[in-house]
Amino acid sequence: MDSITVLSGGVGGARFLQGLLHGIAHGRLPGVSPDATVTVVANTADDLWLHGLKVCPDLDTVMYTLGGGIDAERGWGRQDETWSAKDELAAYGVEPTWFGLGDRDLATHLVRTQMLDAGYPLSAVTEALCRRWQPGVRLLPMTDDRVETHIAIADVDSPSGRRVVHFQEYWVRLRAAVPADAVIVVGLETCSPAPGVLDAVTGADLVLLPPSNPVVSVGTILGVPGVRDALRATSAPVVGLSPIVGGTHVHGMAHQMLTSIGVEVSAGAVGRHYGARTSADGVLDGWLVDERDADQVAGVREAGLACAAAPLIMSDLDATAAMAAAAIGLVT
Amino acid sequence: MDSITVLSGGVGGARFLQGLLHGIAHGRLPGVSPDATVTVVANTADDLWLHGLKVCPDLDTVMYTLGGGIDAERGWGRQDETWSAKDELAAYGVEPTWFGLGDRDLATHLVRTQMLDAGYPLSAVTEALCRRWQPGVRLLPMTDDRVETHIAIADVDSPSGRRVVHFQEYWVRLRAAVPADAVIVVGLETCSPAPGVLDAVTGADLVLLPPSNPVVSVGTILGVPGVRDALRATSAPVVGLSPIVGGTHVHGMAHQMLTSIGVEVSAGAVGRHYGARTSADGVLDGWLVDERDADQVAGVREAGLACAAAPLIMSDLDATAAMAAAAIGLVT
Repeated sequence: MDSITVLSGGVGGARFLQGLLHGIAHGRLPGVSPDATVTVVANTADDLWLHGLKVCPDLDTVMYTLGGGIDAERGWGRQDETWSAKDELAAYGVEPTWFGLGDRDLATHLVRTQMLDAGYPLSAVTEALCRRWQPGVRLLPMTDDRVETHIAIADVDSPSGRRVVHFQEYWVRLRAAVPADAVIVVGLETCSPAPGVLDAVTGADLVLLPPSNPVVSVGTILGVPGVRDALRATSAPVVGLSPIVGGTHVHGMAHQMLTSIGVEVSAGAVGRHYGARTSADGVLDGWLVDERDADQVAGVREAGLACAAAPLIMSDLDATAAMAAAAIGLVT
Repeated sequence: MDSITVLSGGVGGARFLQGLLHGIAHGRLPGVSPDATVTVVANTADDLWLHGLKVCPDLDTVMYTLGGGIDAERGWGRQDETWSAKDELAAYGVEPTWFGLGDRDLATHLVRTQMLDAGYPLSAVTEALCRRWQPGVRLLPMTDDRVETHIAIADVDSPSGRRVVHFQEYWVRLRAAVPADAVIVVGLETCSPAPGVLDAVTGADLVLLPPSNPVVSVGTILGVPGVRDALRATSAPVVGLSPIVGGTHVHGMAHQMLTSIGVEVSAGAVGRHYGARTSADGVLDGWLVDERDADQVAGVREAGLACAAAPLIMSDLDATAAMAAAAIGLVT
C-alpha cells in the first residue's frame, strides 16, 4: 500500500498520526510501503472566529504535532508559548477569556486570517502554513466552507430552557461537564468537500479512522456531502480504531457526545454506529477495540465488520504504531 | 485657563504631554487652573495596516505613555513586552519583519481592528481603549478616515528613479537615512476631522503645538481640512515649541522631512514655517526656541510671533513642565 488517508480530529488524531508515520518509516505496518504517503482530512467544525481571527484547532494540532511545534504535555498549542496578548485582551475586558490563545499560536491565526481575507481558501492557507511546518503528510481541511459545531445545553434561565454554545465553549469553558442535549453542526449539510478530499478517499490504498471523537471529529467529516459515499465506494479497505476503551473515552468527551445522539458509550456500539460497508450506510470494513473490550468483538463481527482486540493506549510511538499495525492487519 | 488642546505626534508629543499634566497638577503653568482638562488631537497619518491589523503608533504612544503602559526606555510599545508572535511571523516568512510588533501591543491592535470591522469609527475605538488606560486626557484621532504618509525616495533600480515607501518603512526600516524626495500624505486632502477635533481647537482656552515633527506629525494634523482654519479662528492663543534644538532634531527625523519641503533645519525657520496668525495663513501666536537658539529669537519676532529662548530638553517631568510654562508665558 502506497497511499493512506486518515480522517482526523485534533489531539487524538494527531497522536495516532505520529505513530502511523513512525510505523511506516520503520516498516512495521503489514503491506504498507516504507515510502507510503499519508493524506489527512482534518475536521474543521471545531473552528472558531476569535478576536477577529480564524482559529482552526484540529488543523493546527495536527500541523504542530507532526511539525514538531506542539506543546507535547498539553497536547495542543505551541511549545515555549507565552501568553502576553491573552493577558492584555483580558485587561481590556474583551470576551472570551477562556480560550487558550498563545502569542506564538496567534501568529498562525494572523497569517491564516490575512490569507483568507485576501481570498485564498482554507485549503490553500493550510498548504501555505504547512510549507513551514513540513508535517510529513498532506493536510487537507474537510471543507473550505464555514462549518461550526454548536452544542445545545440545558439553561434554566432561558425561556426555552436551552442555550446553544459553540463547541469550543462547551469543551474549553464548560469542560463538557453538562449534558449535551443536541449537537448542531451549522453549515455541514450545505458545505462542499475541500479540493482533494474525495479523491483522497477514493484514490487511497487504505483509509483509517483514528481513535478521534466519533461524533464531533470523525462524525462531522463523515457529514460533509460526498465523504460518506466516497468511503462506501472506495476500493480501499476502511478500518477504524475505537476511542472508547473499557467503556470510557481515554482523552476527550465522547460520553456526552455519544449520549446526545443516542449511541451507547462502548467500543462495540461506536463500531456498529459507523457500520459495515456491507450494510445500508456503513463506512467500515474493520474495527479495532481495546483488549479490555474483547468481549465486544463478537457483537461487532455480527454487524459485518472484521474485528479484533489489541492494546489501544497511545502511550508512545511504538505502542501507537502497533495499534496502526493491528488495525491494518484486520483488513489485509 | 480651564481647557488646553494639544496637537500631538508620538514619542515627543507624549513626553511633552506628561510634563504638561505634571505642570497642571502642580500648579506650575501661568494662568492654568490645576483642574484644567487637556484634549489631545493625535496624528494618525503614521498609521498602518500590518498583518491584517490596524496599528496607530502615535495614538498608542500617547495612550500607553500617559496610561503608564509605555516602555519608557524605548519610548514606544509596551513595558514587559514579549515578542513571540513577531518571531513566529518571521518564521512563516511573512513580511514585513522590521516593525516592532510586541505581543502585548498586539492585543490593542486586535481589539481596535475588531471594533473597526464591527463599524465603529477610530475615534470611538480610541475612546474605548482609553477606558482601560485612563490617560488623563481626552484623546482624539485627527480623523476617522484612512490617511497614510508615504515618502518618495531615490531608487536607482526603478525606471522612474524613485520608490515610494510607507512612512513607517522609511522611519523604522530605513531609519530615515536616505533623503526624502517628497512627502505624500495619501487621503489627507479629502479626509474629515474626527468628531470633536475642530471644537477642541475653537473651544479651547489655549492651544499648544508640542515639539513634534513639524512635517509628518503636526504638519499632517494641520492638513486635515478645517484644522488650519480653526487654529486661525480660535480665540485661544496658539503657541508652539521647537523640535529643532541647536540646529538638529533632538529625537526624530525633522532634518529629512524639513529638507523635503524646502524648510531650513533651524528653530527659527520652523517657527516661521508655521507662521504668525497675523500673516496670510500662519497658525501661531508664539514660538519657544531652545536657549542654544537664542540668536534666532529676533528673526522669529520679525515674522510677527512672540518668541523667547528657554531650555527645551525634556530630561524629566519638571524640565518638561518648565518648558510648557515658558511656552504659555509667551502668550499670557
